[in-house]
Amino acid sequence: MANFMDIHHGMKGITQEQLKEAHQADLAIESQEGVHFARAWADPDSGDVFCLSEGPSAEAVQRVHERTGHPADEIHPVPLTV
Amino acid sequence: MANFMDIHHGMKGITQEQLKEAHQADLAIESQEGVHFARAWADPDSGDVFCLSEGPSAEAVQRVHERTGHPADEIHPVPLTV
Repeated sequence: MANFMDIHHGMKGITQEQLKEAHQADLAIESQEGVHFARAWADPDSGDVFCLSEGPSAEAVQRVHERTGHPADEIHPVPLTV
Repeated sequence: MANFMDIHHGMKGITQEQLKEAHQADLAIESQEGVHFARAWADPDSGDVFCLSEGPSAEAVQRVHERTGHPADEIHPVPLTV
């Protein structure tokens, strides 16, 4: 298992409710890909959304996001953390 | 107080020890700016480092990073989180 930080661009104006709904959609199917989305943070002004997850691969993380309708624009493996 | 996600680019090859040292340097002076750096994640391959903090403003977050020698390239207020 590895840790990932993924980024979605273009979500300007996203609301707390929309962020929660998107996260819940991911949580509902994530186990099918062996992924867990731990947290997400959104900047409604820039439209950037950051998701922290763990899973077997960046591809598995992306498959969850694609299946729930919001593919990530960037997925960074983040093996280092403090 | 607000939450921020900041990003540093160009840190290719960063090691766990370097990430820890940079984080510790921030922690050592953050209270002078009313900031707290909660966590940081690094992708040594792309050179992107992500820092999660809380503080009074993006400018205060940047002042800590500047004083410790690693100004952020992007600072996103993230008022929404799940």
